[in-house]
Amino acid sequence: MDMYVNNEVISSIQNERVKNWNKLLLKKYRDEKNEFLIEEEHLIEEALKCNIVKTIIISEGCFDKFKFDNTFFVTQNVMNKLSSNVSEVKYIAVCKKLDEKLTSSNKVLALDRIQDPGNLGTLLRSALAFGFNQILISDNSVDIYNEKVIRSTQGAIFHLNFLRCNLIETLKKFDNYDILAFSLDNSNYMSEIVVNKKVVIVLGNEGKGISKEVFDCCNKKVKIEMNSFESLNVAVAGSIAMYNFREKNSDVL
Amino acid sequence: MDMYVNNEVISSIQNERVKNWNKLLLKKYRDEKNEFLIEEEHLIEEALKCNIVKTIIISEGCFDKFKFDNTFFVTQNVMNKLSSNVSEVKYIAVCKKLDEKLTSSNKVLALDRIQDPGNLGTLLRSALAFGFNQILISDNSVDIYNEKVIRSTQGAIFHLNFLRCNLIETLKKFDNYDILAFSLDNSNYMSEIVVNKKVVIVLGNEGKGISKEVFDCCNKKVKIEMNSFESLNVAVAGSIAMYNFREKNSDVL
Repeated sequence: MDMYVNNEVISSIQNERVKNWNKLLLKKYRDEKNEFLIEEEHLIEEALKCNIVKTIIISEGCFDKFKFDNTFFVTQNVMNKLSSNVSEVKYIAVCKKLDEKLTSSNKVLALDRIQDPGNLGTLLRSALAFGFNQILISDNSVDIYNEKVIRSTQGAIFHLNFLRCNLIETLKKFDNYDILAFSLDNSNYMSEIVVNKKVVIVLGNEGKGISKEVFDCCNKKVKIEMNSFESLNVAVAGSIAMYNFREKNSDVL
Repeated sequence: MDMYVNNEVISSIQNERVKNWNKLLLKKYRDEKNEFLIEEEHLIEEALKCNIVKTIIISEGCFDKFKFDNTFFVTQNVMNKLSSNVSEVKYIAVCKKLDEKLTSSNKVLALDRIQDPGNLGTLLRSALAFGFNQILISDNSVDIYNEKVIRSTQGAIFHLNFLRCNLIETLKKFDNYDILAFSLDNSNYMSEIVVNKKVVIVLGNEGKGISKEVFDCCNKKVKIEMNSFESLNVAVAGSIAMYNFREKNSDVL
């Protein structure tokens, strides 16, 4: 890490650093570089606590509030090029991806082919709130480092354990867990089932639901009580499920 | 209503009908004309059941599946002008707004200054699923006829009773209801409070929460059990609350 603050202001979107930062808006390059971008001050503060920040980029004329070693100032024009946000962003950070982990958490959220970034981000925010600290996410789900995902998590992403994996293989390791498939077909109402302390909540794609192969890895089929013919947004259904099966001793009581 | 199918294809965005339809993308004109636009076939089918469809607009070359009297064909170029969607839309309908109603529903959702269209739409979808059939929405909330709101409701909007109002005035009429303010400050945990059958769930702005004046109209303060220092998306919090206090006899059991 450069041990100085770079004082010259970068004004060209043709600048090599800018070109490389800009590439991180694409999953392909995030995977290649093992880096991602975050916007907004509170997210950068959270990332600094986790020691994953590599570079901070500040819009020309804005206060250098982070006093981070490797800081660059750029024109707003360059900033806009790096931001996926409509409103003008003042601070952006380049972060290294979180280390993937498989922990012994009692509460696990498994996501099969979730496609909408807002839904994924909202689910991760709820997961942290209800003690679901281990997240399993299928290879074919939306990238957790998508900027809209990170924004929707409100920083929760930095406090969870992730494993991007083949769910069919990985769920086999949870043989002492109740693995709950949330689905409308031949399932029991959530309020009527008895579940042990160790639980995996499995959620499927917004349109297609849980894939057959993943569904077959689950040992309980559950549905949320609701009016007939209605359905719920997947982030809502998953959050209600996580609230219902939450880590009780993690409540503030 | 014109009693014929208009066979000529409208190709100009300068066409007077097109100009008038296009204005409905703005709240100001939706309010003025008491009309709004919907996209996607399943939403149009729902709207037809409610007899609120005035005109159906079909992209040139697409099948006239609705056989609706007042139908117009337009070029895809005109269609894109009328659509707020990124992907190419094939069917759009002009609908008249729903009649506002105040019903005697036991389950009421009151929304104070909700700003995000996706959050509002998701809340309405959950409200229908859990039997909260009366919606009170503050004057300064996002418009329920915003296209993104309607899309997020997945059609639920056509089956709910709405009243856009001054919440402080309107909540006074619910004197035999438990009026629950969902808030983190000096409140009781949701699982610990006893609530009667008639309940109003009050939710506030994404950032600022419930306004002081509306908060003072509530007779119980409630919070959802979660890890300390965390927070939930308002659509998630509201949906968990509605699930918890749902119309039990409306469950499919």
